[in-house]
Amino acid sequence: MSKNPSENHHGQRTGEVRIELPESADAEVYFIGRIRTPWKIRKDCPRNARQARETGAICTIEIDPRWTQALKGVETCSHLVVLYWMDQSRRDLVLQVPGGDCATGMQRGTFSLRSPARPNPIAMSVVQLVKVEGTHLSVISLDCLDGTPLIDLKPYFASTDSIPDAEVGWHADRVNASLPPPEE
Amino acid sequence: MSKNPSENHHGQRTGEVRIELPESADAEVYFIGRIRTPWKIRKDCPRNARQARETGAICTIEIDPRWTQALKGVETCSHLVVLYWMDQSRRDLVLQVPGGDCATGMQRGTFSLRSPARPNPIAMSVVQLVKVEGTHLSVISLDCLDGTPLIDLKPYFASTDSIPDAEVGWHADRVNASLPPPEE
Repeated sequence: MSKNPSENHHGQRTGEVRIELPESADAEVYFIGRIRTPWKIRKDCPRNARQARETGAICTIEIDPRWTQALKGVETCSHLVVLYWMDQSRRDLVLQVPGGDCATGMQRGTFSLRSPARPNPIAMSVVQLVKVEGTHLSVISLDCLDGTPLIDLKPYFASTDSIPDAEVGWHADRVNASLPPPEE
Repeated sequence: MSKNPSENHHGQRTGEVRIELPESADAEVYFIGRIRTPWKIRKDCPRNARQARETGAICTIEIDPRWTQALKGVETCSHLVVLYWMDQSRRDLVLQVPGGDCATGMQRGTFSLRSPARPNPIAMSVVQLVKVEGTHLSVISLDCLDGTPLIDLKPYFASTDSIPDAEVGWHADRVNASLPPPEE
């Protein structure tokens, strides 16, 4: 396994720690559609959801026709929670060294990061819904590769999902120290 | 299959529409822990995340020891995104009649609801982190049954996850009409 610090999350960077995955899985997932984005290779992807939003790119969520009726009422939502399957990510890392931290080798726990490398490689993004046309939803914006499998869509309720004063301490410390933006 | 309007989501209510699930699944999930809540049976569960928060109940997320190191830094987060597997929910409903809508039989699309009945029965809640002790996280609050399997934890970033002015049109219409609170 590569130890090259420039390795992306298909590999393992210096300082990253992996464990043995369980011998068997516990449940199964259906892919219910695909996400179309302008990003065909990993290095072109935005580093996080904020960067994705700043690009202003319109991405398209294509729902498998089997689920068409399940879209009823979605058009009344201004924002959606999108869950998608980061199918190219490794699942066995417990400590990671995000790209922006390679110089210091700072280890961060997988559950303190939004990195796609996690035991269940499910990404969650909040997107603005621009348009619904049949089974195609235009949204701003997603940070994943073109073709990424979709696993769920939900309405975003500000009453429970919006916490404007939430803090991520380790991240705030980095910003305060004027370090370059990390992968989150 | 039961057509009793009082049926819960293990069954099917009048007006609800199901489809044939795909013949095979596309990916596998590991359960990475369990959620401990005060709610042992379905009818005692809060109806949604807002009600759960209003109970003020402290719930406990128990992480499988395999993933202990992945918790590094989580204690610096004020809020977390929790993904969990609603293992008692059916997965084949595309149109649902939420409990509060039984009288009118109003059909709503699965992707416009936070109902646990969905193709991939993954619930997402934003919780306040109260305390971390080893592999046990105390949080306010979750709306699921005691023993529900955990599948992911993520830091909540207000910069991308908080949209205070987001709207769910169908839900706002209900509130404006002074209808009883629906399941979301």
